[in-house]
Amino acid sequence: MKPKKEIKEWANRIKDGDRQALSQAITLIESSNVEDRQLAQSLIDFIEPWTGNSFRIGITGPPGVGKSTLIDKIGVVLIGQSHKVAVLTIDPTSALSKGSILGDKSRMAHLSSQANAFIRPSPSSLNLGGLALYTREAMLLCEAAGFDRILIESVGVGQSEFLISLLCDMTLLLLQPHSGDEMQGIKRGVMEWADMYIITKTDGETFNGSNKTYIELNSILNFVPRKYSFWTPKIIQLSVISGLGMATLMDNIDLFYNLLFNDNQLYKLRLKQSETYFKVQWAKMIEQYILMNRSNVELINFLATEVGHGNISSEKAFDKLLKFIFATLK
Amino acid sequence: MKPKKEIKEWANRIKDGDRQALSQAITLIESSNVEDRQLAQSLIDFIEPWTGNSFRIGITGPPGVGKSTLIDKIGVVLIGQSHKVAVLTIDPTSALSKGSILGDKSRMAHLSSQANAFIRPSPSSLNLGGLALYTREAMLLCEAAGFDRILIESVGVGQSEFLISLLCDMTLLLLQPHSGDEMQGIKRGVMEWADMYIITKTDGETFNGSNKTYIELNSILNFVPRKYSFWTPKIIQLSVISGLGMATLMDNIDLFYNLLFNDNQLYKLRLKQSETYFKVQWAKMIEQYILMNRSNVELINFLATEVGHGNISSEKAFDKLLKFIFATLK
Repeated sequence: MKPKKEIKEWANRIKDGDRQALSQAITLIESSNVEDRQLAQSLIDFIEPWTGNSFRIGITGPPGVGKSTLIDKIGVVLIGQSHKVAVLTIDPTSALSKGSILGDKSRMAHLSSQANAFIRPSPSSLNLGGLALYTREAMLLCEAAGFDRILIESVGVGQSEFLISLLCDMTLLLLQPHSGDEMQGIKRGVMEWADMYIITKTDGETFNGSNKTYIELNSILNFVPRKYSFWTPKIIQLSVISGLGMATLMDNIDLFYNLLFNDNQLYKLRLKQSETYFKVQWAKMIEQYILMNRSNVELINFLATEVGHGNISSEKAFDKLLKFIFATLK
Repeated sequence: MKPKKEIKEWANRIKDGDRQALSQAITLIESSNVEDRQLAQSLIDFIEPWTGNSFRIGITGPPGVGKSTLIDKIGVVLIGQSHKVAVLTIDPTSALSKGSILGDKSRMAHLSSQANAFIRPSPSSLNLGGLALYTREAMLLCEAAGFDRILIESVGVGQSEFLISLLCDMTLLLLQPHSGDEMQGIKRGVMEWADMYIITKTDGETFNGSNKTYIELNSILNFVPRKYSFWTPKIIQLSVISGLGMATLMDNIDLFYNLLFNDNQLYKLRLKQSETYFKVQWAKMIEQYILMNRSNVELINFLATEVGHGNISSEKAFDKLLKFIFATLK
């Protein structure tokens, strides 16, 4: 365990904008080692007073909808407005397929060449719930390092979209032009958390599809309860090729930001989100905590195999696991 | 805590087919009271030697596809073949909408009037993971009571379908005729666990839609990896109105049952399922265990409110919760 003084120095280096210190800190919070975890907690405690000053924007949508390309564009505009931009990407599927550091940086070619940009992909080793925990802490670290616009990219898979909307001040949902699939998802009510709907690829062969999607989405949105009294979710038809919709998008991000900062709306919003986040995540946090201990992981794997060999019932295996966890963690 | 003798007597009454004893036992396992939970565990231990002798059939699909109606039909046929049939229904949405004891029984009007049938809806108070735990134990109790065909109905919502396929020997997926939505779900790979695909409502206005769905589904299935070397998943076009497909369905249930019982396939399958079940459910089991303690629930709610009022960060709240849980449970 590092002495308190060293942690304070580390925190100060992060605050002073030392990229290496920031990168190392994010690597630390990704670690599942118990001592690393405690160290990470101390570090977060130190930097906490310097957090909360960014505008946190979530960008979500199905694979291939164009999230990275749009983030690249938004990021470059924000940097042109003298903002410091951090990008955190969450991809629960990355362990299976694509998604590496090089991959993310090359997908955001313009942004990654900017001095005021910081791009960090999610570790592929974590599961969905773990990713959200990690992302929250990574976001706080970036804020402490002076980034005032945090863009969080998340593939829309199951619960991840909802979790991202709890971490962010504004959530953009990207949709494919005329995708029946997406419409079904929207009809099922996964849309209430979105603050803006962006129909991508409003160009070439998919231009007409974008128009059709706009009409459908617009009629659905009339029946969706409003998240805020002060904001009506916008639908924006966008093309990163022609640039169509980009100015409208940036205007609306500004508009939403200003509305949120009125009357302490942002403060109220974040507290409400934190409350929900705690309620839906506490069990996941305990799971992560248990998995940090290697002997627990070994026992879980051993018991699963024993169950698979018929040597023990799953009920009894759980009983053994429970006794072991509480005996060792106390 | 009841003495061991009483539990043994209770278990014996269940084994002797005492419906009241069975119903009370299922009510017991639904309880989240700590003492009830321990009692339930003792009861499960007692009845375990008498379990595992049923053929466990899962029936899943979207709301309104006709699950209850089909279960009613299948159940009556099975009873005509001298089987004893238990129906357990899992509906994660029931807390919000429909789904009551009366509701389930009236939806299975023919089956519920049979002496050899037992219909038990899921308690609406449990969450998804909890439901699967409850269902596994309820299934064991029904087996101990001599039911040799267990039909488990589950609304296809999120992970519930996958969990049901881990509890059952055979899983039937019901599909609406020509539903673009379902096809998307299937394409995304939620189908590998299904042993049979049933296109319902192959009659009247939706007859042509059923044919179209059959063709689409058939072409998709060619690209889906096989679950078993000895079984090719069947697609059955069904109408509960005309009776079309019912005989084919029952033949295929018999055929699958016989194949599974060959060469101990069933035993191997169940062990493999139990292993996966343990791996995906242990954390949920710990969550349920923690929630059994009322003081934990009170602390979680209190901390969430504190987080929502800005009195404590969610990180610190989690830390407090963890300390409390491990201090009290040990």
